[in-house]
Amino acid sequence: MSAQATATEHHPVTPTSSAPPRPLAEGGLRVVALGGIGEVGRNMTVFEYEGRLLIVDCGVLFPEDDQPGVDLILPDFGAIEDRLDDIDALVLTHGHEDHIGAVPFLLRLRPDLPVVGSKFTLALLAAKCREHRLNPELIEVAEGQRSTHGSFDLEFFAVNHSIPDALAVAIRTPAGVVLHTGDIKLDQLPLDSRLTDLAGFSRLGDEGVDLFLVDSTNAEVPGFVTPEREIGPVLDRVIGKATQRVIVACFASHVHRVQQVLEVAEAHGRKVCFVGRSMVRNMGIAAELGMLNVPDGLLVDLDQALEMPEEEVAFVSTGSQGEPLSALSRMARGEHKQIGIRAGDTVVLASSLIPGNETAVFGVVNGLVRLGAQVVHQGHAKVHVSGHASAGELLYLYNAVRPSNVMPVHGEWRHLRANAELARLTGVPADRVVIAEDGVVVDMVDGIASIAGRVEVGHVYVDGLSVGDVGESTLSDRLVLGEGGFISITVAVDVTNGRAVSPPTISGRGFSDDPKALDDVVPLVEMELARTEAEGMTDTHRIAQSVRRVVGRWVAEKYRRRPMIVPNVLPVGS
Amino acid sequence: MSAQATATEHHPVTPTSSAPPRPLAEGGLRVVALGGIGEVGRNMTVFEYEGRLLIVDCGVLFPEDDQPGVDLILPDFGAIEDRLDDIDALVLTHGHEDHIGAVPFLLRLRPDLPVVGSKFTLALLAAKCREHRLNPELIEVAEGQRSTHGSFDLEFFAVNHSIPDALAVAIRTPAGVVLHTGDIKLDQLPLDSRLTDLAGFSRLGDEGVDLFLVDSTNAEVPGFVTPEREIGPVLDRVIGKATQRVIVACFASHVHRVQQVLEVAEAHGRKVCFVGRSMVRNMGIAAELGMLNVPDGLLVDLDQALEMPEEEVAFVSTGSQGEPLSALSRMARGEHKQIGIRAGDTVVLASSLIPGNETAVFGVVNGLVRLGAQVVHQGHAKVHVSGHASAGELLYLYNAVRPSNVMPVHGEWRHLRANAELARLTGVPADRVVIAEDGVVVDMVDGIASIAGRVEVGHVYVDGLSVGDVGESTLSDRLVLGEGGFISITVAVDVTNGRAVSPPTISGRGFSDDPKALDDVVPLVEMELARTEAEGMTDTHRIAQSVRRVVGRWVAEKYRRRPMIVPNVLPVGS
Repeated sequence: MSAQATATEHHPVTPTSSAPPRPLAEGGLRVVALGGIGEVGRNMTVFEYEGRLLIVDCGVLFPEDDQPGVDLILPDFGAIEDRLDDIDALVLTHGHEDHIGAVPFLLRLRPDLPVVGSKFTLALLAAKCREHRLNPELIEVAEGQRSTHGSFDLEFFAVNHSIPDALAVAIRTPAGVVLHTGDIKLDQLPLDSRLTDLAGFSRLGDEGVDLFLVDSTNAEVPGFVTPEREIGPVLDRVIGKATQRVIVACFASHVHRVQQVLEVAEAHGRKVCFVGRSMVRNMGIAAELGMLNVPDGLLVDLDQALEMPEEEVAFVSTGSQGEPLSALSRMARGEHKQIGIRAGDTVVLASSLIPGNETAVFGVVNGLVRLGAQVVHQGHAKVHVSGHASAGELLYLYNAVRPSNVMPVHGEWRHLRANAELARLTGVPADRVVIAEDGVVVDMVDGIASIAGRVEVGHVYVDGLSVGDVGESTLSDRLVLGEGGFISITVAVDVTNGRAVSPPTISGRGFSDDPKALDDVVPLVEMELARTEAEGMTDTHRIAQSVRRVVGRWVAEKYRRRPMIVPNVLPVGS
Repeated sequence: MSAQATATEHHPVTPTSSAPPRPLAEGGLRVVALGGIGEVGRNMTVFEYEGRLLIVDCGVLFPEDDQPGVDLILPDFGAIEDRLDDIDALVLTHGHEDHIGAVPFLLRLRPDLPVVGSKFTLALLAAKCREHRLNPELIEVAEGQRSTHGSFDLEFFAVNHSIPDALAVAIRTPAGVVLHTGDIKLDQLPLDSRLTDLAGFSRLGDEGVDLFLVDSTNAEVPGFVTPEREIGPVLDRVIGKATQRVIVACFASHVHRVQQVLEVAEAHGRKVCFVGRSMVRNMGIAAELGMLNVPDGLLVDLDQALEMPEEEVAFVSTGSQGEPLSALSRMARGEHKQIGIRAGDTVVLASSLIPGNETAVFGVVNGLVRLGAQVVHQGHAKVHVSGHASAGELLYLYNAVRPSNVMPVHGEWRHLRANAELARLTGVPADRVVIAEDGVVVDMVDGIASIAGRVEVGHVYVDGLSVGDVGESTLSDRLVLGEGGFISITVAVDVTNGRAVSPPTISGRGFSDDPKALDDVVPLVEMELARTEAEGMTDTHRIAQSVRRVVGRWVAEKYRRRPMIVPNVLPVGS
């Protein structure tokens, strides 16, 4: 880097236009994220070479406060829905929901899509697909293997993450070599001895990596993630000291975390009981595949556990994010039918605190503490470590791979920008670091990656059984209703003369607890109806608008509130 | 402490019953928090001696996600509303909203209530009262002073906090000596050299403190808060490096933080422009009272600032909590009319991240980063320190005061419990540490504090201009509406024969973007109306219930959603 470098020269390439993409140059490779860049979740990246497509991951995003009532958010398949038959394969890097959760929805569009992944990843996907009554073609791969799907020659590398059997994938096409980390960290003492294959990355770096897509989640965090195995001794101290009930909550896919709980529980003479559907299911799969080592006779089911003395069992439970319906939340509210928390019980939240869940999680903590439990969480004890590489580890990655072009993925803007800066510090020229976001089209042509335009990428919401019928207009109505409720005014009008044939019925929901709150507006509505009748207005839509205006003005002045005003003018007598 | 102490013996006294309080014993002192214990905010504690009352603080609480549409939450005055004339004084420990925000609402009930506080606290209160058109009796006090109000003999102590001129208050009655810290920390190098008066606390401890009410906010945090003055050099490095626009966001009452920004700005040749109504107002008050030292000519208004070269001005702004309507949020969305963020601009969030605001604050950060700004926040730079004592400082307090009884205040359960444990570690017997929550009645009789019952304390919501008419039933409706919207079915029925005189009108809001989403249910409703007519049902309420049941069942089966079902059966022809 030149000492004269100015601040401006340091800025990586970022999307500035919303123009549709220019055509992909012959021999070039196109990369478009349909989710996962500019946000944390619904990771899905589409690679295109010579008209053929390869997809890496297909996950879900969990909704924020401004997306009320939404269960899941899917990547927007719009950009590929006309080209489903061009897809050579879907590659899954690992089995977390934000990487595999949307696969069933993609399979509904193209049931014969080959899905490539590691043994554990595919086992989790298969369980999910059975629930959706889907039976896709699954192609199992492992680290060190190569496989070819149409134009794409893939090589897989072992990656350490907070779930077993994660992979990074190298994608070779005549346009160059791409390496996608998936989610990654570099624990140098992993519990299963399965290291992130930095040696393999280095070898690939020797060959030359043209484009490197890198997990940005923890790029803002300096230093290195503590090894997972340091959690075991902390759990040992906490559980060893406990004289009553012990409950450990963690993610249902964190096999290594659960492995440590099993070992500590056994050491202290406690049986283990899994609580929560996904915990029971995933640990069953992990045990079956030999990824969770369960000593004979250690596990008991809930009925058995409840029969045993409290100090002889440890519960391993879901609910670590404060999910209101989870067993742990019900315990915290004193509403769990079978498990009542008593003073002196121990609860460990061996989990991260996902941003946005703070209120819910601390609500659970306060409920448990109020009942007298000792609650151990990452705020004051080392009972959780992240699954994502911190800045120090990312530097190792960049220095091993020595990429020509870099594209930070998996993160919000602040994470992407921090990751870009790390790439730059290791010597990647600033103009070869491309910060994209969902829908931004990045073309790699003649070894140079650059932004070629943008395709439209929206939010696709799942609410109950439907996909896509809940959109921004419905959400915007929900936000208004959730803030202020509504006032409805119902009146039947004779459309031959515009006369109201019933007194108007005015009622509110979510507006006030006061039964007289709307009394004052009744005469105003009646006056307005008399006025519209006198004017000879018979159009029910126009009458409704007049009524809405009167009620809206009244409520703004009297209450300074903005409930939704819902006039129902019923035509009769026509 | 005995080595034989068991876990159970360590439990402090906590509220177990919801029984109404037993009568206060003669010569005893009663303490009841109407807000602020078991939650962070709306601090208000009532002391009673021989039938007379003293109130310390009267603040507001900001709503959570499950309190949609609510602007503010007040302490529940219900327990004292019949006894307003028994109140001898209201003492304010400092000028933060969670300590003074509800004063106007209490003054509406008792306009002649004497309000006691320090100069800056009363100045902020007076500005607030002017907005509410109230003109209360203000009694100014300062550290080292004593004042008597009815049965209560008060002494004030200087306290360091994140606002100037904070006080702790000792309350002497024949029942004993009480010390209430208010919000407190023990910065040993405060910017204004006004130390927390640990020497005074020690002298009071020599005299004997019977009951000690202690700020719990940071009791879970080990160690000591970094001195405020260490932020100056960090700001100096950040602002000194900036070559374009600089915006510093912080709390509008944090005079010492702003003081440091002023000094750094001046050192780097920048004028300062205050942005945000409360920032302009509060800094005006602070400057007028000599608590903010503003060099001549340093301040410019927004119009002047916008005329100046970007590198010659620094903006000091509100909006540090991601408030969506704030200037900073509008800049982050690119919607601010006058200030457009460009690549290379610098934004400093010199503020805490209040739990619950994470999504909003990081939304602002991402927006600014996306526009190319460098955003400096406490996540990666020392640009904020807390205003509340960490565990290490609290130990100093306990060891200085050596109280007979302790009552942790200002905090959620996890904070209260941690604070109780600190008291115990310094030698306060576990059964003399009383963990209460809002409404729990603590009586101190013969030098021993214990729980005497509970008065009902609810949430009092302010929504727009009204206080109290929005209650749990309205909020519960808002939550349902916000999650799923509603489906309304409107039909006019001839009450003489039960016949529908119009086809039913069925429409949804917040339910679906699909205009045909409800088409399938229309024939089901028509069938049901035919059925109720055939049954001879003419009661509109019962017809409405039948229709609700049919639509509710249909939507649960077809969509697996739970919108509110709102039937309007209009009686005509009667």
